[in-house]
Amino acid sequence: MSVFQATASAPVNIAVIKYWGKRDTKLILPTNSSLSVTLDQDHLRATTTSRADPSFKKDRLWLNGEEEEIKDGGRLATCIKEMKALREEQEDKDASLPKISPFPVHICSRNNFPTAAGLASSAAGFAALVASLAALYKLPTDASHLSLVARQGSGSACRSLFGGYVAWQVGERADGLDSHAVEIAPREHWPDMHALICVVSDHKKGTSSTAGMQRTVETSTLLQHRIKHIVPARMAAISDAIRARDFDAFARITMQDSNQFHAVALDTDPPIFYMNDVSRAIIALVVEYNRIAVENGGKLKAAYTYDAGPNAVIYAPKENLKEIVELIVKYFPQADAFKDPFGLFGVAGVQGKLVPGFNEAVAKPFPVGAVKGLIHTRVGDGPRTLDASESLLGSDGLPLKA
Amino acid sequence: MSVFQATASAPVNIAVIKYWGKRDTKLILPTNSSLSVTLDQDHLRATTTSRADPSFKKDRLWLNGEEEEIKDGGRLATCIKEMKALREEQEDKDASLPKISPFPVHICSRNNFPTAAGLASSAAGFAALVASLAALYKLPTDASHLSLVARQGSGSACRSLFGGYVAWQVGERADGLDSHAVEIAPREHWPDMHALICVVSDHKKGTSSTAGMQRTVETSTLLQHRIKHIVPARMAAISDAIRARDFDAFARITMQDSNQFHAVALDTDPPIFYMNDVSRAIIALVVEYNRIAVENGGKLKAAYTYDAGPNAVIYAPKENLKEIVELIVKYFPQADAFKDPFGLFGVAGVQGKLVPGFNEAVAKPFPVGAVKGLIHTRVGDGPRTLDASESLLGSDGLPLKA
Repeated sequence: MSVFQATASAPVNIAVIKYWGKRDTKLILPTNSSLSVTLDQDHLRATTTSRADPSFKKDRLWLNGEEEEIKDGGRLATCIKEMKALREEQEDKDASLPKISPFPVHICSRNNFPTAAGLASSAAGFAALVASLAALYKLPTDASHLSLVARQGSGSACRSLFGGYVAWQVGERADGLDSHAVEIAPREHWPDMHALICVVSDHKKGTSSTAGMQRTVETSTLLQHRIKHIVPARMAAISDAIRARDFDAFARITMQDSNQFHAVALDTDPPIFYMNDVSRAIIALVVEYNRIAVENGGKLKAAYTYDAGPNAVIYAPKENLKEIVELIVKYFPQADAFKDPFGLFGVAGVQGKLVPGFNEAVAKPFPVGAVKGLIHTRVGDGPRTLDASESLLGSDGLPLKA
Repeated sequence: MSVFQATASAPVNIAVIKYWGKRDTKLILPTNSSLSVTLDQDHLRATTTSRADPSFKKDRLWLNGEEEEIKDGGRLATCIKEMKALREEQEDKDASLPKISPFPVHICSRNNFPTAAGLASSAAGFAALVASLAALYKLPTDASHLSLVARQGSGSACRSLFGGYVAWQVGERADGLDSHAVEIAPREHWPDMHALICVVSDHKKGTSSTAGMQRTVETSTLLQHRIKHIVPARMAAISDAIRARDFDAFARITMQDSNQFHAVALDTDPPIFYMNDVSRAIIALVVEYNRIAVENGGKLKAAYTYDAGPNAVIYAPKENLKEIVELIVKYFPQADAFKDPFGLFGVAGVQGKLVPGFNEAVAKPFPVGAVKGLIHTRVGDGPRTLDASESLLGSDGLPLKA
């Protein structure tokens, strides 16, 4: 008998125009469009194997080695049900297809980065879930259509269905069928975009983004102005900047929108804070680094952005990454040697040097551990269908040991 | 020969609807109305002696023992010139008055709190300057009229010309003559309003409020919405709350407006941060303290507010101050014993106790020195004319040793 199984991986994406607020919490329809850069799966990815088998008793799912409950009507159940329905449509159209849509599925997923790092793990996870089920079911469905399903798992997951530069369109329809992801430009259009993720230690568990964004929708008196008047213009302007590979404009809008997202979080009652003193210090360093560049007659060289947590993601053209790593390490000494996936540093390693003219007093040096890790990555491709050798499920349909 | 001299003191005020942004930087005309509570001069005050004498060579001013330059066209020079002009008007009307308006003045001012504490020392300072010159010149001018002069020294100084609850009206005129302070209610209307000032240590010198607010005016895309649509409604609502002595409404609006001021600061390019991790933790404590009160069927019991710095001011009805001091000291142990001007604590002193049901995990305890001082005060009166025995100038017209 045939084995119906597929494995896929999907990337993390980090927004530059932020998603914050739902107009429909069940369908996960946003209050505004958003835009992100997909990061390289060579460095950060979720990998998922899905198998359909009539001998399985029920749908089951394991995440990073732990079984997760698939609650009726919950986000996982919704995504699985929608994917089965897409398969069923195909089976109804083509009687030669094996009728596997009624089979229970086993799904096993792993991230190659710690969930605790506070990266957008649910986005990569739901995108990989949808991509692996699409591969299992051999769906002809395009990525935008699949993004409608991933969106119902975790809003920002819809953007991880594409590589490169990706918009999630707010849409107008009540059923959400026009609230999907579209590619603004593929990775190949602007491959020079690199990113340094600064994993910041925090004592306090922040407000979950699901709860936080709804509190903002209910209580912020600034959010509606942002939604109606600011975001649409920024979406257009940053899309133009991406098409023109204009890093200066990209950086300016990225930083402004990160700040405005945190501003409306702060305008919430009670207020929501995601950035801490370490995050603030990294902003001060990037602002000073850019100030020097502009003073020397140049343009912005780096852009910070912060999601619903204290971690900084610094976007920059590849040529600036060496200076940026030096800068961050100068103020945030690292316990471990910098993993240098692009070979920027020779045997001497990172020295913690500042560019000439940098005003050292813009921040004080922090102790080891304040930034507990640095990840250097770049713009990447969309979900990948992987070879059977990469399967996470054993021949018994249960997770392989990690 | 007569000595023409007077001494006056003026209070600090802490805004609950925040002033942030000028429409005219020379006249110091604001982009929106603001509202403050005047604090008790028994605890915090600026005291100023002014003397007019034909033997003086020029106008001179000493602040906390150091002579300050009175720059031509600067804020000090403007206030002194305007006060001399008001005296001259009187002299022109009444020939029996000694003609002292042409005499140079010596002005000596002292705060009874450290400037470095980051309290609103310039507001109290300019109010005391104006009040002492008004006393020296025996002006019949009312406090609202005097507030027009103080405003040109430091915007928020205009509110320190009144005790109690004070609005600074935005005004419409280009010459600023309708942008002055008015009393919403005197101290006696609601004397139960107490305040705990938490003086927070900070490593970083923040952006000056003068520079910061203009950067917000120029770059924030949210500020205009705040100015046009949010502040006018909040001014009306908090004035009503004060008239009704409704602490619940007062507290809610106060916290929302503090948050929104910091939100528009963050929406500035580059962003401005005044609150740090200690400030954030104090907010979390007040939010939790209020949550318990509301859960127990009550109303809000405390309201935080932050000016352009990390210090918290916690407003609360007097009956809650004991619990609030206990709460703050629990998380922010103090090097020095609590100065207990209202005798809340017996010989046992502050224990650092939490109210029943308080979720301790909302913040982590900080080391000694994170909050470097606590000042318990309350709503207070307006400027006081003091007896000659309180003079800060000696018979030679020079500052007395402190």
